[in-house]
Amino acid sequence: MTIKVPVKSDIEIAQEAAKKPIKDIANGLDIVEEELELYGHYKAKLSLDIFNRLQDKEDGKVIFVTSINPTPAGEGKSTVTVGLGQALNKLGKNAVVALREPSLGPTMGIKGGATGGGYSQVIPMEEINLHFTGDIHAITTANNALAAFIDNHMQQGNELQIDTRKIMWKRVVDLNDRALRKIVIGLGGPVQGVPREDGFDITVASEIMAILCLANDLQDLKTRLAKIVVAYNTSNEPVTVHDLGVEGALTLLLKDAIKPNLVQTLEHTPAIIHGGPFANIAHGCNSVIATKMASKLGDYVVTEGGFGADLGGEKFLNIKARSANIKPEAVVIVATIRALKMHGGVAKDALKEENVEALENGLQNLQKHVETIQAFSLPFVIAVNRFVADSDNEIACLMNWCETNGYPVSLTEVWEKGGNGGLDLAEKVLHIIETSENNFKPLYDVEASIEEKLTTIATTVYGATKVTFTPQAKKQLLQFEGEGWSNLPICVAKTQYSLSDDATKLGRPEDFEITVRELRPKIGAGFIVALTGDVLTMPGLPKKPAALQMDVDADGNAVGLF
Amino acid sequence: MTIKVPVKSDIEIAQEAAKKPIKDIANGLDIVEEELELYGHYKAKLSLDIFNRLQDKEDGKVIFVTSINPTPAGEGKSTVTVGLGQALNKLGKNAVVALREPSLGPTMGIKGGATGGGYSQVIPMEEINLHFTGDIHAITTANNALAAFIDNHMQQGNELQIDTRKIMWKRVVDLNDRALRKIVIGLGGPVQGVPREDGFDITVASEIMAILCLANDLQDLKTRLAKIVVAYNTSNEPVTVHDLGVEGALTLLLKDAIKPNLVQTLEHTPAIIHGGPFANIAHGCNSVIATKMASKLGDYVVTEGGFGADLGGEKFLNIKARSANIKPEAVVIVATIRALKMHGGVAKDALKEENVEALENGLQNLQKHVETIQAFSLPFVIAVNRFVADSDNEIACLMNWCETNGYPVSLTEVWEKGGNGGLDLAEKVLHIIETSENNFKPLYDVEASIEEKLTTIATTVYGATKVTFTPQAKKQLLQFEGEGWSNLPICVAKTQYSLSDDATKLGRPEDFEITVRELRPKIGAGFIVALTGDVLTMPGLPKKPAALQMDVDADGNAVGLF
Repeated sequence: MTIKVPVKSDIEIAQEAAKKPIKDIANGLDIVEEELELYGHYKAKLSLDIFNRLQDKEDGKVIFVTSINPTPAGEGKSTVTVGLGQALNKLGKNAVVALREPSLGPTMGIKGGATGGGYSQVIPMEEINLHFTGDIHAITTANNALAAFIDNHMQQGNELQIDTRKIMWKRVVDLNDRALRKIVIGLGGPVQGVPREDGFDITVASEIMAILCLANDLQDLKTRLAKIVVAYNTSNEPVTVHDLGVEGALTLLLKDAIKPNLVQTLEHTPAIIHGGPFANIAHGCNSVIATKMASKLGDYVVTEGGFGADLGGEKFLNIKARSANIKPEAVVIVATIRALKMHGGVAKDALKEENVEALENGLQNLQKHVETIQAFSLPFVIAVNRFVADSDNEIACLMNWCETNGYPVSLTEVWEKGGNGGLDLAEKVLHIIETSENNFKPLYDVEASIEEKLTTIATTVYGATKVTFTPQAKKQLLQFEGEGWSNLPICVAKTQYSLSDDATKLGRPEDFEITVRELRPKIGAGFIVALTGDVLTMPGLPKKPAALQMDVDADGNAVGLF
Repeated sequence: MTIKVPVKSDIEIAQEAAKKPIKDIANGLDIVEEELELYGHYKAKLSLDIFNRLQDKEDGKVIFVTSINPTPAGEGKSTVTVGLGQALNKLGKNAVVALREPSLGPTMGIKGGATGGGYSQVIPMEEINLHFTGDIHAITTANNALAAFIDNHMQQGNELQIDTRKIMWKRVVDLNDRALRKIVIGLGGPVQGVPREDGFDITVASEIMAILCLANDLQDLKTRLAKIVVAYNTSNEPVTVHDLGVEGALTLLLKDAIKPNLVQTLEHTPAIIHGGPFANIAHGCNSVIATKMASKLGDYVVTEGGFGADLGGEKFLNIKARSANIKPEAVVIVATIRALKMHGGVAKDALKEENVEALENGLQNLQKHVETIQAFSLPFVIAVNRFVADSDNEIACLMNWCETNGYPVSLTEVWEKGGNGGLDLAEKVLHIIETSENNFKPLYDVEASIEEKLTTIATTVYGATKVTFTPQAKKQLLQFEGEGWSNLPICVAKTQYSLSDDATKLGRPEDFEITVRELRPKIGAGFIVALTGDVLTMPGLPKKPAALQMDVDADGNAVGLF
């Protein structure tokens, strides 16, 4: 049994695809003309009025795709999500895919694109990977306008008495630009502003991205924006966007960005792509509006969260599903042979060699994520995303292990074969939805203390023995309780490579503690960020950025995205 | 004779307007469906393929609108441009308006919008004033991606030996953010980058904006991007985008931004809005592609340049028209009673009081701009843009002066009456096009020395006695000649308020010299910038920014843009 390698690159496959006009895709979903705002021939924004018109229609069933702890190259979660959506449609179901919008930073830097791969992609991939419909640019602009209003407020007399040393609001660019991590601004004398330390994050780490992704509608967006804590004043009291009086202007800048975007997959499955918060500093899922819209328009929604079940997965289930009242019907846990071998101790450059022993060793990582999904009382299917170098012995080992444990599993070839490569997975997912009991419940009560909630996540999801707090974090625990911020869900910022807070501990680490270094109030988003280890909110570029390969051909088509 | 005040604000008028679907506007221009990319129902991008399809069609006649030296509130040049376009259509001509895209910085800061006013506006004004079709965001992204590539190059070994003290490429935001004018980046130790002085400009001051506006097509755009000089190396040799190898990636980021945008005026006159470079540090005109597209689609094109005839006017005629081989047929010089009174010595807060003597005094400013247009051998009409406070005596004085001098003049009421308020102006413009001799020629030969070209502009256009150079500028003159950069047109950065380089010298200053402080090579744009006085490339916000009034209503409509 060998797997064929598509000789074509992702962008070649995507550009050769026969795209349907997005109007036709929308027609198939019973969207009426006034609800569709075209952005060119193959992209459109959807009006939120659809929710009103279809309020009596039953919601489609939500299938959530997550994965084991990934390797730096990613495990193909988006590819499986797209492939599963295509497969469901091949089986005659009305399925809609809901995905995140890619950030330009990684696209220009390392990844070259984030729209699935092979024959399971969303298209037009070059548009989605570049400016798309401008949502991320709108967020960048709103974020930086707020920063300018803060510095201008201080320059013009500082009526709110903002403490220049305690400004938490950072500027953003949607690029990998390490030189902006730590900067000093406002230099040049009294006419040029108030000098202070500052720094830029990547846009997808902005609280405004998280807010856009958790807001239910435009009014909710405005209410959340108003609550953002941007700084403390000289009496150490929080200063909010509402204190600055600019929530209206920020909402205005986001009035189109809040509308979800409709595109299609290579096989014309409708895909709603909207929002893309980081899965470490934020909750890592596409927008509530995207998932709910997909659920209004389709009988099945296939959606995903960033990184593994310990990050995007835990946050989808504890933060997004709770906040939006979404009840997932099934979970797909994506695993790859090569990542499992890495968890079993194989070095990155030896992953192409067969190593059944290492694979067996690495299965404990998958086992932990299975237990996590079980802790949420959700039925699941393991999807093995097949890669070219996977050997028959390795595949047999993995399938046997699943069978022995009684775990539903499917070997998927969606990358090579599109929807046809995911038919078995689709059937198994439909089967567990029909046959399993599903008592989904978030893992913790939001009314519990910050410490209790963190302990639940760390022990149940990561497998840690306990949580410890640095002196700074302890001080913040008290302060946040005093501000009335403790009854919010927790968003843990942690390395994606390990279940622990140490990126080098692969597999299933044991006897470890999670150290919370710092807490950050994201009151607009509606969660408290707990930082563990060093979390990078502004990536850097590699020595040879992906951008060096990029170009346009004589007809104006994109070249070198992959 | 009194003028009625519309009791409605600009945004109220614009939102109440019966908009035609942009498809219908495009149909009226013989644009075929594949050439139109809709952005919602009322905006579209136009394919550059139109140029090929219509290559044998005769170009429409270009009417260029400029003004006297403006007051801080602006003289209504865009309003007259829109009104004249509407009036020409009322006379049965097929006219298309070509305008610049507004920058969000001034919109959020002071102006609240830049899309004409009253009953001579382009719509949807709130879209055009906010993110529009994303062109400026694409430019911001390309500009900042280039900055990240430069800093990353130094971080990764600095093969090109870029001198960290001699990097000329600045980052940008499309906001007024004075705290970013002078900053220090790359702090935090060796992992965070190379520390250096830096600063942000507003996006419209980016050389990439100027390049987009002067490029003839995508290939020309790429060629120009490759030539941008970003820094000098340690041997004081220029380092270009081509040396960094990223012109392809930058072109890819701009592949949609290069397509011009089609909207409509309140009276459904087609309007092409594309590009918006600063008129001081850059050439201040909408894109060559916009003007040429309007000229392919219409029999008449009404277009404008930023600030007065000494800045945007001179640059349209010496830089843009030359580079794009555009031959304007007539010039409209916009003047207002209140600006003329200011030039005649009246303080800003006394402009509403009748003052015929000051008006007479201020007419010398208008006289100078008339002479400038005559120096280009172009026929002109003076358009008096009527304001509410203008008295009958003042208007009579101005009209008499024009008659005495034999200058064609029209009192326009396009703000109050739309196209109907500009019928007389339209007839006079058509008349001079038909009857006047037009021997248009740029004022200088590009092959002349930088010094000679600057002297021509300063003496002929500004009325200066001569040009002097600071020691730094003198050194640069020699350096630029050595690099082979001297046969480019000159783009003077000068205050817009005065003909001289001193903003306080109103009217028609005499016996003054122009001091060139610094020269900057904009090799991608294809001109040399000569800086006189202090030129602000990053504005600041006022104490009460316009943003404080902005909001969305319950239906998601924009509120508080004006």
